[in-house]
Amino acid sequence: MQKQIKLVRRPVGTPSKEDFEFAHVPVGEPEEGEVLVKTTYISVDPYLRGRMNDAKSYVAPFELDSVITSGVVGQVVQSKSPKFEKNDVVTGSLGWQEYSVAKESEIRKIDTKLAPASAYLSVLGMTGLTAYFGLLDIGKPQEGETVVVSGAAGAVGSVVGQIAKVKGAHVVGIAGSDEKIAYLKKELGFDAAINYKTEDVGTALRNTCPDGIDVYFENVGGEIGEAVLPLLNKFARIPVCGAISAYNNKEADKGLRVQGYLIKTSALMQGFTVGDYASGFKEGSQALAGWYQEGKIQYEETVTEGFDQTIEAFLDLFQGANLGKAIVKVSEIE
Amino acid sequence: MQKQIKLVRRPVGTPSKEDFEFAHVPVGEPEEGEVLVKTTYISVDPYLRGRMNDAKSYVAPFELDSVITSGVVGQVVQSKSPKFEKNDVVTGSLGWQEYSVAKESEIRKIDTKLAPASAYLSVLGMTGLTAYFGLLDIGKPQEGETVVVSGAAGAVGSVVGQIAKVKGAHVVGIAGSDEKIAYLKKELGFDAAINYKTEDVGTALRNTCPDGIDVYFENVGGEIGEAVLPLLNKFARIPVCGAISAYNNKEADKGLRVQGYLIKTSALMQGFTVGDYASGFKEGSQALAGWYQEGKIQYEETVTEGFDQTIEAFLDLFQGANLGKAIVKVSEIE
Repeated sequence: MQKQIKLVRRPVGTPSKEDFEFAHVPVGEPEEGEVLVKTTYISVDPYLRGRMNDAKSYVAPFELDSVITSGVVGQVVQSKSPKFEKNDVVTGSLGWQEYSVAKESEIRKIDTKLAPASAYLSVLGMTGLTAYFGLLDIGKPQEGETVVVSGAAGAVGSVVGQIAKVKGAHVVGIAGSDEKIAYLKKELGFDAAINYKTEDVGTALRNTCPDGIDVYFENVGGEIGEAVLPLLNKFARIPVCGAISAYNNKEADKGLRVQGYLIKTSALMQGFTVGDYASGFKEGSQALAGWYQEGKIQYEETVTEGFDQTIEAFLDLFQGANLGKAIVKVSEIE
Repeated sequence: MQKQIKLVRRPVGTPSKEDFEFAHVPVGEPEEGEVLVKTTYISVDPYLRGRMNDAKSYVAPFELDSVITSGVVGQVVQSKSPKFEKNDVVTGSLGWQEYSVAKESEIRKIDTKLAPASAYLSVLGMTGLTAYFGLLDIGKPQEGETVVVSGAAGAVGSVVGQIAKVKGAHVVGIAGSDEKIAYLKKELGFDAAINYKTEDVGTALRNTCPDGIDVYFENVGGEIGEAVLPLLNKFARIPVCGAISAYNNKEADKGLRVQGYLIKTSALMQGFTVGDYASGFKEGSQALAGWYQEGKIQYEETVTEGFDQTIEAFLDLFQGANLGKAIVKVSEIE
């Protein structure tokens, strides 16, 4: 038997422990073309909140009384596929459980010599690709332009800012603690960083973006996203990746209407999800791995130890507590 | 001497007569490379409201105590340019006055055999080009897709809907009177039209857009623009042309935040102004003239007679009174 985590109630507003339940279920047996994977790391991500609602979105909602799924790194313990061998380290979208039976098409091998296994849930995984495509395909930063990113110390935002630096932009991050601000400036090379909890964001943006804002990578929405609007330059671009400030709202999310700002500046706002770019994943992964090896992109993790802490690690995302990618370590790689 | 209209006070909220003043000034004398133009038609447009504020926008604000300018059609009465002869009918951005001295680079000749002179202020002028580029460059309607346009009976909206029909889309217009609704359906061939003053726009959109909305051409902003959001299809496009509902707001324009909707559908919102497409004006004008000659694009005008009525004609725009392009007829072409 093994433990797994099921969604038993759709959260109203901020999720709570009572929305989830641990279950004891059989480990399962792989059939032809399948492997049994022992879970090493589980990725906990803000976007999962959206899948907990019973609403049409870009991915189907989670079913009630079913196991939650997200990005997972694990190790093959038994293989009935010619493509995988015992002890291969793999990644895929798998369940919040200690062991998963996975079809060979659901997982891919990862190279733990290139980077630690957990990096494949962050900078070399979906969050890195999210940053890559949102920034480069929609944001299109040019050398010397100003790029602002909110949620800058998070898994996506930290990669956005570093790619923008690679592209020669003036990069300003917005985050929620002095520790994060210091990390962005000292470790990641951001040109400036703003603590939205202690500074007036509008004033701080005017001070740190003397030439206006060309690209705003939106991770948080709400009032932070609005503070950017008066500073947009002509033909500014806003990749809209997330709106974590609104994910737990019970009421409709209301604020400044953007139309007037977009007209004045001929600016573009575009929502996206990494799945829109599936055909480019190989190219994006190679670029990210290259920058990682050259030391141009670093990453940080907030690692929570133990499968039993998975729900807490998820709930912590909405407290703004994590620096970089939030993951849960379930077991050691052998 | 001649009459002209000056802006003497920056409007607060809805403009009023007291913001403007008639002045009596000399007619002026053309120098080398200039012509004297007798004003035939003056274009009154919602976007002029924005230029009356002292705020950075895509065009410079009007100066106080100076003549207001907009699109004008007129006739050359005296030419000191080899490019123009007496009686040529011309168009350009000129003053709200009975006569203008214009540099030869500020005006261009128009062909009144192809269409009535006033059409060069609407379907064959800047409003037609606004519809053309906003819809085709940003909206990119495909055959069989659903296009919704607000301000549908207005100068821009009516052309947007007709071009969308040329492109094979299912076209739904939103306007503010039963007369306008009948005009859109019976005269312009819209598939459906919604009277926002008597119908619940959200319900009416669900009924008239059974396959969702692929393109929303935004002319009005406010609650009408919001009613569209829940119906957007994946990869929907929203050209943001105007937000007339907010132009006279004294307070910040607040409403539903769009981020969540854009993320769910990977939708794009892009502000624009016709000036962004200056390099394509020739191509756009030719396409519009071709469709006009083929009878695929019709236009309607609300003509106010007499220069003295120009201010009223402008103020009427914000009452939603006009059908099609609002123009003022100042004199006859000889």
